[in-house]
Amino acid sequence: RIELAVNEVLKLMPENPMAALAEALQRVSINSSSEDSKPQAPQVDVAALEAEIKSQGDKIRSMKDAVKANPSAFAKEEIDAEVAKLKELKGKMPANSSDKEKGDKKEKGKKEKDDKASKHLIPVEPVMGTRDFYPEDMRARNWLFGHFKEVARRFAFQEYDAPVLEHEELYKRKAGEEITQQMYNFVDKSGYAVTLRPEMTPTLARMILGRTTESGETKMILPVKWFSLPQCWRFETTQRGRKREHYQWNMDIVGVKSITAEVELLAAITTFFTRVGITAKDVGIKVNSRKVMASILKSQGISDQQFAPVCVVVDKLDKIGPEEVTKELVQLGVSEKTAGTIIKTMSARSVEELSTIAEGADQEGLEELKELFAQAEAYGYGDFMQFDASVVRGLAYYTGIVFECFDRSGELRAICGGGRYDRLLSLYGSKQEVPCVGFGFGDCVIMELLQMKKLLPDFPQLTDFVVAPFSKDMLPNALKVAAKLREAGATVDMQVELKKKVGQTFDYANRVGAQYVALVAPDEWNKNMVRVKDLRMEDKDANQKDIPLDKLHEWRTIFGST
Amino acid sequence: RIELAVNEVLKLMPENPMAALAEALQRVSINSSSEDSKPQAPQVDVAALEAEIKSQGDKIRSMKDAVKANPSAFAKEEIDAEVAKLKELKGKMPANSSDKEKGDKKEKGKKEKDDKASKHLIPVEPVMGTRDFYPEDMRARNWLFGHFKEVARRFAFQEYDAPVLEHEELYKRKAGEEITQQMYNFVDKSGYAVTLRPEMTPTLARMILGRTTESGETKMILPVKWFSLPQCWRFETTQRGRKREHYQWNMDIVGVKSITAEVELLAAITTFFTRVGITAKDVGIKVNSRKVMASILKSQGISDQQFAPVCVVVDKLDKIGPEEVTKELVQLGVSEKTAGTIIKTMSARSVEELSTIAEGADQEGLEELKELFAQAEAYGYGDFMQFDASVVRGLAYYTGIVFECFDRSGELRAICGGGRYDRLLSLYGSKQEVPCVGFGFGDCVIMELLQMKKLLPDFPQLTDFVVAPFSKDMLPNALKVAAKLREAGATVDMQVELKKKVGQTFDYANRVGAQYVALVAPDEWNKNMVRVKDLRMEDKDANQKDIPLDKLHEWRTIFGST
Repeated sequence: RIELAVNEVLKLMPENPMAALAEALQRVSINSSSEDSKPQAPQVDVAALEAEIKSQGDKIRSMKDAVKANPSAFAKEEIDAEVAKLKELKGKMPANSSDKEKGDKKEKGKKEKDDKASKHLIPVEPVMGTRDFYPEDMRARNWLFGHFKEVARRFAFQEYDAPVLEHEELYKRKAGEEITQQMYNFVDKSGYAVTLRPEMTPTLARMILGRTTESGETKMILPVKWFSLPQCWRFETTQRGRKREHYQWNMDIVGVKSITAEVELLAAITTFFTRVGITAKDVGIKVNSRKVMASILKSQGISDQQFAPVCVVVDKLDKIGPEEVTKELVQLGVSEKTAGTIIKTMSARSVEELSTIAEGADQEGLEELKELFAQAEAYGYGDFMQFDASVVRGLAYYTGIVFECFDRSGELRAICGGGRYDRLLSLYGSKQEVPCVGFGFGDCVIMELLQMKKLLPDFPQLTDFVVAPFSKDMLPNALKVAAKLREAGATVDMQVELKKKVGQTFDYANRVGAQYVALVAPDEWNKNMVRVKDLRMEDKDANQKDIPLDKLHEWRTIFGST
Repeated sequence: RIELAVNEVLKLMPENPMAALAEALQRVSINSSSEDSKPQAPQVDVAALEAEIKSQGDKIRSMKDAVKANPSAFAKEEIDAEVAKLKELKGKMPANSSDKEKGDKKEKGKKEKDDKASKHLIPVEPVMGTRDFYPEDMRARNWLFGHFKEVARRFAFQEYDAPVLEHEELYKRKAGEEITQQMYNFVDKSGYAVTLRPEMTPTLARMILGRTTESGETKMILPVKWFSLPQCWRFETTQRGRKREHYQWNMDIVGVKSITAEVELLAAITTFFTRVGITAKDVGIKVNSRKVMASILKSQGISDQQFAPVCVVVDKLDKIGPEEVTKELVQLGVSEKTAGTIIKTMSARSVEELSTIAEGADQEGLEELKELFAQAEAYGYGDFMQFDASVVRGLAYYTGIVFECFDRSGELRAICGGGRYDRLLSLYGSKQEVPCVGFGFGDCVIMELLQMKKLLPDFPQLTDFVVAPFSKDMLPNALKVAAKLREAGATVDMQVELKKKVGQTFDYANRVGAQYVALVAPDEWNKNMVRVKDLRMEDKDANQKDIPLDKLHEWRTIFGST
């Protein structure tokens, strides 16, 4: 029946819509007289569309106002339908037209085309919602990633990686999640549904399954302890200013049922914090157990099937408040009374409190929670930890302990989060259940926190040597000097164009953070020497030395000994 | 006129074809009864399509055979048209169905669906044409990238990075290139044309322009010396086995007219070779000057406009032979006689030979070439270098020196390549011409070469310690030991699940490449000691020590001194 319906759809569409479009536009391009008119994305009447979007937005706002006055004025479905319409309209908006100024510039550029074909500036910003890393940004990123990697090394986790492009199916399989609507997905030229990965866990699961036999035995040494630093993507049209990509430090342990796996991951997170100067006064880690919550909710009549979607809703408690959460829970088939009990249960702030508030809690799960806190204490990071029954995490696949790290000042979003997901591999087709636990730790919020706490060091450009030929005929000799110093491990910025004045060389050397300038000039060269000046040494008498060519490789000790 | 034509095209198409398709398929999915049937890429009759592809392939083969027997049997255009048809057919093929076994499995899975909904295995391979990096692959990649980065550091190049997703326009602007047809491009959900970057140079140019004032002055210290290790993507439907992604070491110098910029880049390449054990006997670097070639071709009546496309064609000389190149040159409006002269000129294997074969060569360009070879000699890598007039590189944007590194055994494709592209920034809208030179060095061919030459080291998993609790009550103490050792910089694999026998711990430790096992057991613990065994020490009497807890941080010296 599905295939029939698909065929119906396909009859209405070009067989390969993108190819047809590209081809059609190609033809247009060929027909045009100018060589510079390149095929473009479909043009839309931006002004008309903007007006439509505005009017649709007004409509929704008035509906919502009406509902506030009288809850039965409109059904949720009615409003949802209008919101969907709004989204569709926004989807038609060309990505760049949101920035009005840019749009105008482009328009202006077009008018000038007759004069200066092809001379208009290409977009100099990266694709919307993404970041370039200029060298100074890259030094900061390398510093942060260096800490991530060093912590992972000390915990004996092995690095892995996978293509940023993933099978869309991995994410569709984990149904009921917001993430599938926010994916940077597309159908490739061969008709295959792919996406820029929104998160790394499904990829990890895929790779583990790739090394698992038919009968469900992994071919790897268990436990698998892996880490990665993937760039993850999402597509959001609505919220301006939110990024569409971030990097995320991932650490996962596969094959361990014991809570000590969680303890290790939390130890890695707190080890990282300690390395960069963040203390338990700055951040805390909220911990909960979905297993325990599920048992309590089950005693309230929430089925296993309902549990994951209930968690996804309850996760929004902070954002949308108890009233909205109750509404959404009712939509999931939860009675209003039970919704109230759930929200009350979520207020527990200690394992003991939870036991008294809620009946029917899974004893094994409670025991696990207590053990987790005891082991964290033993490892030495107990002061970071607190129980919080409201933390359930937004992802449907968690099955046990979940945790979330937060900034105690309350200014920032969650710093990192994770938990146990023992059933993801079964959902993906594994014949055996494979216990898994992991976390994701983004690169953006932590950098904001470090900045806020003034814990970010400076990242200046640093160079050991600038090597400069005194004149054109000295250039080959300067190249020899550069080669020798590099062979000896120095960072050497070779001056590739002659400067008119020596002063320019020193200016340049100061700007690129060089410690030494090696000036290759005829007088010294004839004595097999190179004049080297230490730019950071105050003592004007000692800061310059003539070094024999065959001693250049000892540059560290020569200058270290002065 | 173009806008009118575009509107014509759009009338024939859904306004947003992908959105329309997705929406339509969503509806189909809602109509279906099973919760597990997720929207899929359009279904096609794979068997019928395969038959069609086969028959079309046969047709082309017979046409080609006919041409071999009688060159005028079919025109090139006729065959090309049939090849295009074949490509189109192949494009309709679902990405995964090429692998017959998989297809069958999937089919089988579908039939079993009624029994075990959603239990069929997800795709465990990465997206077609891409690579996963399991830890052992990642160690090899990190080793290679470590050399790339270390060389770049010694040359004082700064690292930069940018999103893998780029504006399609960057590549469309550089018209006349094969790359635009092979792009992994798509229109995003907001209607914006993006692509997974096929190469890094346009991104570099974009970033430089992003730091350039209206009047064309850069805000950065010149020269800019940057490097990056981007993953680059292409989309090819036809050639099975060819990868759709690779990593590419890029080094670029911006703002330098002098040939010494090229000399520095070639020095970096050869420094890398030397580090990994590749000599001038293994590889060579072919160098040519497009400036010189342009001057010679100009004297043959080839216009500046024709020059870049002529280079793109001539670059295929090795692949398609002189006859085909002549045909394609004639198609570009070059006379058959001139085509012959061009091909003859390409045979020059020294600067001197070129001067005698071809008249009208640009003297400044010839001088530059001679200087380049002299400076390479001075730096110390002259033996890698050779002139080769047939090297023009396939990219349209090169304007001066071009080079290509090849394996002397002739078994592998080009190892790296690059050159000068002084006009790319102007093409992108810069008001001033900005001299640029750079190279790209892929990660695949070099690894093949290193393997071929047996120069790849082993990359075993290595760990300092496995820390194991003797019993459950020792677990908190074992965690303390792990924390102490990690604080002291050790790589510590904490045993997160109790083993029944100590032997299992040692087995595990051996498999993960651990040097020491720290066994946390009651007898020693009561004396504030931990028993540590050195697994790599032969001497059975000396390979075990009880170390006081407060001395654990001295682990390196304790064992170093035995």
